[in-house]
Amino acid sequence: MTAYTATVTVRLKRGVLDPEAETTQRALERLGFELEDLRSADRFEIDLEADDADAAAERAGEMAERLLANPTIHDYEVTVADR
Amino acid sequence: MTAYTATVTVRLKRGVLDPEAETTQRALERLGFELEDLRSADRFEIDLEADDADAAAERAGEMAERLLANPTIHDYEVTVADR
Repeated sequence: MTAYTATVTVRLKRGVLDPEAETTQRALERLGFELEDLRSADRFEIDLEADDADAAAERAGEMAERLLANPTIHDYEVTVADR
Repeated sequence: MTAYTATVTVRLKRGVLDPEAETTQRALERLGFELEDLRSADRFEIDLEADDADAAAERAGEMAERLLANPTIHDYEVTVADR
């Protein structure tokens, strides 16, 4: 078993309204910043032990499917690094 | 001016309690997943135009300082990619 950190990034699918990101973007513009777009995402960093990186990524993907992401409105991506 | 996407990752400093992450970890364990630790972070993807990548990173860093992160409890990191 090797120690890995799997990072799961959960973001809204294109087309799903994100009022929090819009509010953040407007607040930045009101502070004088120039930007074209802002998107927000949730990032989960999960420490786990697995036989290899593929097994770690598969388990993190299952966690996303079961709990971390809502497949109706979210896309997610998984990356794995040695710890 | 070149089009960049700056990614600002905002996470709690070590030692700051994160009850949301703890709850998520316990929920995953209740579903039968094995993991050692889970940390959550906010990720902001900001599309902007700047003279070069350094200028884009500097502006995104100011956004983090002024609005996206609370320096008392958060660390942040900025990465920049061409768009």
